[in-house]
Amino acid sequence: MISFASDYVAGAHPEIIKRLAETNMENLSGYGTDPYCAQAAEKIRQYCHCPEAEVYFLVGGTQTNQIVISTMLQPYEGVIAADSGHVNVHEAGAIEYTGHKVLSLAGKDGKIAAADLENYVARFYADDSYEHMVFPGMVYISFPTEYGTLYSKKELQEIYEVCKKRNLPLFVDGARLGYGLASSENDVTLEELAQLCDVFYIGGTKVGALCGEAVVFTNHHAPKYFVTQIKQHGALLAKGRLLGIQFDTLFTDDLYFKISEHAIRMAAKLKQLFAEKGYRFYLDSPTNQQFIILENEKLQELSAKVDFSIWEKQDEKHTVVRFATSWSTQEADIEYLSTLL
Amino acid sequence: MISFASDYVAGAHPEIIKRLAETNMENLSGYGTDPYCAQAAEKIRQYCHCPEAEVYFLVGGTQTNQIVISTMLQPYEGVIAADSGHVNVHEAGAIEYTGHKVLSLAGKDGKIAAADLENYVARFYADDSYEHMVFPGMVYISFPTEYGTLYSKKELQEIYEVCKKRNLPLFVDGARLGYGLASSENDVTLEELAQLCDVFYIGGTKVGALCGEAVVFTNHHAPKYFVTQIKQHGALLAKGRLLGIQFDTLFTDDLYFKISEHAIRMAAKLKQLFAEKGYRFYLDSPTNQQFIILENEKLQELSAKVDFSIWEKQDEKHTVVRFATSWSTQEADIEYLSTLL
Amino acid sequence: MISFASDYVAGAHPEIIKRLAETNMENLSGYGTDPYCAQAAEKIRQYCHCPEAEVYFLVGGTQTNQIVISTMLQPYEGVIAADSGHVNVHEAGAIEYTGHKVLSLAGKDGKIAAADLENYVARFYADDSYEHMVFPGMVYISFPTEYGTLYSKKELQEIYEVCKKRNLPLFVDGARLGYGLASSENDVTLEELAQLCDVFYIGGTKVGALCGEAVVFTNHHAPKYFVTQIKQHGALLAKGRLLGIQFDTLFTDDLYFKISEHAIRMAAKLKQLFAEKGYRFYLDSPTNQQFIILENEKLQELSAKVDFSIWEKQDEKHTVVRFATSWSTQEADIEYLSTLL
Amino acid sequence: MISFASDYVAGAHPEIIKRLAETNMENLSGYGTDPYCAQAAEKIRQYCHCPEAEVYFLVGGTQTNQIVISTMLQPYEGVIAADSGHVNVHEAGAIEYTGHKVLSLAGKDGKIAAADLENYVARFYADDSYEHMVFPGMVYISFPTEYGTLYSKKELQEIYEVCKKRNLPLFVDGARLGYGLASSENDVTLEELAQLCDVFYIGGTKVGALCGEAVVFTNHHAPKYFVTQIKQHGALLAKGRLLGIQFDTLFTDDLYFKISEHAIRMAAKLKQLFAEKGYRFYLDSPTNQQFIILENEKLQELSAKVDFSIWEKQDEKHTVVRFATSWSTQEADIEYLSTLL
Repeated sequence: MISFASDYVAGAHPEIIKRLAETNMENLSGYGTDPYCAQAAEKIRQYCHCPEAEVYFLVGGTQTNQIVISTMLQPYEGVIAADSGHVNVHEAGAIEYTGHKVLSLAGKDGKIAAADLENYVARFYADDSYEHMVFPGMVYISFPTEYGTLYSKKELQEIYEVCKKRNLPLFVDGARLGYGLASSENDVTLEELAQLCDVFYIGGTKVGALCGEAVVFTNHHAPKYFVTQIKQHGALLAKGRLLGIQFDTLFTDDLYFKISEHAIRMAAKLKQLFAEKGYRFYLDSPTNQQFIILENEKLQELSAKVDFSIWEKQDEKHTVVRFATSWSTQEADIEYLSTLL
Repeated sequence: MISFASDYVAGAHPEIIKRLAETNMENLSGYGTDPYCAQAAEKIRQYCHCPEAEVYFLVGGTQTNQIVISTMLQPYEGVIAADSGHVNVHEAGAIEYTGHKVLSLAGKDGKIAAADLENYVARFYADDSYEHMVFPGMVYISFPTEYGTLYSKKELQEIYEVCKKRNLPLFVDGARLGYGLASSENDVTLEELAQLCDVFYIGGTKVGALCGEAVVFTNHHAPKYFVTQIKQHGALLAKGRLLGIQFDTLFTDDLYFKISEHAIRMAAKLKQLFAEKGYRFYLDSPTNQQFIILENEKLQELSAKVDFSIWEKQDEKHTVVRFATSWSTQEADIEYLSTLL
Repeated sequence: MISFASDYVAGAHPEIIKRLAETNMENLSGYGTDPYCAQAAEKIRQYCHCPEAEVYFLVGGTQTNQIVISTMLQPYEGVIAADSGHVNVHEAGAIEYTGHKVLSLAGKDGKIAAADLENYVARFYADDSYEHMVFPGMVYISFPTEYGTLYSKKELQEIYEVCKKRNLPLFVDGARLGYGLASSENDVTLEELAQLCDVFYIGGTKVGALCGEAVVFTNHHAPKYFVTQIKQHGALLAKGRLLGIQFDTLFTDDLYFKISEHAIRMAAKLKQLFAEKGYRFYLDSPTNQQFIILENEKLQELSAKVDFSIWEKQDEKHTVVRFATSWSTQEADIEYLSTLL
Repeated sequence: MISFASDYVAGAHPEIIKRLAETNMENLSGYGTDPYCAQAAEKIRQYCHCPEAEVYFLVGGTQTNQIVISTMLQPYEGVIAADSGHVNVHEAGAIEYTGHKVLSLAGKDGKIAAADLENYVARFYADDSYEHMVFPGMVYISFPTEYGTLYSKKELQEIYEVCKKRNLPLFVDGARLGYGLASSENDVTLEELAQLCDVFYIGGTKVGALCGEAVVFTNHHAPKYFVTQIKQHGALLAKGRLLGIQFDTLFTDDLYFKISEHAIRMAAKLKQLFAEKGYRFYLDSPTNQQFIILENEKLQELSAKVDFSIWEKQDEKHTVVRFATSWSTQEADIEYLSTLL
């Protein structure tokens, strides 16, 4: 069935499959020490214009969030995140499992505001009993957010200002980074992003890889013995080549950016289609996830013919649903959908 | 360079690459809910003659050990393992990271003895202050062991007898299970193994997959909400198909067994070669890992021409090294090696 | 200086000191196995009319919350609490340290509502991706709350109804239980409380003991090998007598209730005093903690002569402060305070 | 019944009870911020000749071991301890509960040897795969050991040399420190001990207090926000005065040393008594714990008249038992015992 259910419904971009096949019989050392990992890391440093960045490859998004956050925090610290942040809602308590609290901040459309962040930290240190509370230890934001929205460069700069003033590392969850960068409403380049945070990851799983996320530490923020800590979390891949080859492919000839742009073009068509047909949007998303409010009858009808995700109940008669595009979305998929709306 | 460094130096068996390519553009649901995962699980149940087994797919070995052990233990329990067990030595403390002690038992050639196990548990409960100690909560063994050795059926039966008497689930780490089953000295079938423990895993990473381990719970031992707990450990793959398709391939037309047998044939040749040339063995291994004691000068000479692993220093002049074969080892590799010895 | 800073500013009720001295040279077994612990537990069971209750003694409140919650939850579960709950705010992340999320619910005056609880749980299970979220595993409420407020019997019954329907154990933090039971606005007896939850604790530290909290499990809810788990948390007192003797004293001749009633009488006078002098209350508390809104100038003036706690900034010119009474508050303290207002 | 079962069978030294009573009605601030804690800390610094030492008070021994070790280790590190060390055997896995492995070293009579320590660390870093293993992060020894034995000054110096060379903080568990310092065979002063390690604790619970251990960090090793981390472990006492007053009393007029010397005199008599009567010792202990090998019949007979501890089975006919003296042991107790042997 045609699917807009998520951006991980298909396998990998064919170029990745091709490269996996081509390199398959090479004997390579394990645990991320192979030349493809080194090469992919170097290419990412170049794309980021960040020659001293430390790049590591992990398998999935929740794993990456868990490992980055738990290894960067001190034991008495928690991570500040929007209440809707993936780490706060949809990771089965993976952060708390490592002993750390998620300090949730009320967000708007998935985003936190610099002023709210500063206010939170200021109130914390103004509290007489702050030594009995969880210290704010880092800040987590998603780009794009879980609602598909984007921080503007100015918003990012303001958040990072607070972070630097308060000595809080800023971590950007880029599970869908490519789709954010490719959005026509985006004004942040990859190079700028690397300068506006202390660690971020370039999502592979949702942007054309079979699996894999590339963590980029800037400003020498990589935790000591990070490989050992990855191992301790059960996350060190024996055949690290699987990640290295994929990211090497994605960062060759701009593939990562090309497939992201394709997905965004498809999303723009999808958005336009729903708008033209008079559907209401739950919010205005400039990226590959579109949230539509459907009448429940329409939902039933549509779901028999095309796959999409149920987000949440809006009211007794309406439901918020999500349509996602990806590198694998076809023009024909959109055309078919248009016949159903 | 020709490599006997480990059984994870090459990519995947070509049939796996082929199947990944063939299925690549199918739209499949995520997180292990796709039909390939279901199909692979069903095939594994059939190979095990264990229709009620619960089968889950995870990405790597340490991850599997960590998740299985931590979700099956009660908080006040630890896992009994040989002192040389992978969980006790080479997982960077992944078990302790989850709050549980590894209760190490002196082993011989990587194996524990049923009598020592019974003795350990008996002494525990005979101790007046056992409520101040870590309760033995499950037993971990590797098949083959980290030294390539195997438990005989009788040894397994005896260990499982103690486990049942003492109400301790028995967990078999099968990272190299195929190579154990294929060994000419092995007298345990997959079906029997499934009957002689409560949970085991069928290693994929070291037996022809790019990544992946299939966990098999028998006797309804799967922990409640196991998928949620996998997620909480950061180990739930979004594109679960990557695991499902690989195991579906491995358990089609006996591929898993065929490639294991090939590796064992290669290992037998390798072993014979070293024996004929008068090399000493560190111990007698019937599987794909062979441990040789090399003079340090020979080690230097060889290591310039072929890859293998340094195991440990034997004395000032000798070093224990490991040569491993796998599905990808070629006859020609052995022949070339023979010219160097 | 006269102090209303908290209910733990003085030592212990003199009768406790006397009993510690009288029993001091007796040779008693350790770790809570002494006869005073047994006797105290039995008296508590009788006061609760709950002959099958399991009673354990711990040292402090945060410790008790941490141990009860972490030992009763499954690994994939979190604890529901009011956003203002002690476990959510003022325990330095002690719950998260054990791997569990605090699932915060918006409260009113420190209390949660049964309808909000039911709604939270209903929405959780209605969510398509609930297996990727932290399961609600138990409910935590404080009686009195951190704001001194009380649940009525009806409110408790409604909450417990939801808990039973949803199979969620209900845990009542009774750090100040005595003051709640003694309040003139309270309509819940100790016996009823024991029937309206699955575990609660009777606070000693803030109600006349040097230290100590008595945990009461009803309905056979005590976790298996609870003593071992207490030890594992570093919380098992070698000289358990210190706790047993104190609770034996508190539950002899109604001492616990008498000193609670005294504190409540003192609090009523204090409340009346502030009201008569025209001070504003932050909220209406029927127990031993009174929250007053002071002008900052008055705050400065008062704090030079009497101890109390700064709660939070109200606005630029006003601050919320807390005055607490306890078993040790004297009539003369109140009279002196009246001269300052 | 007369008891040699342990050194925590009686309450507190009467002087402590007296001081608790005298100070009982003083209004003091909580959580260790009261003047008695400050005063006790200052006295301890003076006794240690260590003016910059940071002193904190905790409630019990396992709690202290857990908190000191878990807050000083990095996440990827474990603590090296003798296989018989309290943290390795009798703390119900309290160290592992915090995520850290106890790296056990074969000991002799409860002690580790500097050479074995150096060898362990050297082998670790010589291992090709050390990044897959738990890093040695600190060293734990007990003084006296769990078997009552003592490190000589020379042995301590040698161990500390290795620790400094390897950058491993040395932690001395002084649960029975007084009895060690008072032993006629001891050649280490408190001042020297403070110079020969990075953190140690002065045991109160077993040396005359109702509860309490004084942790002394030298060389500025106190973990950042240590009070918050104590709170996070559920170990911060609201009425910190209970610990401050006790240690203030113990370190006034040499009380801690006087009562320790008394216990050691009693132990010497006890030891002489068993020796004269021809009993065999399990090992030669110079402190307050004496380990005797009893015939099982004699054990039965004795245990009807006097309390002592069963240690372990020696063989079918003999059992190792422990007789402990303390500050509360009376001359008359020894005399009575002599009539039974």
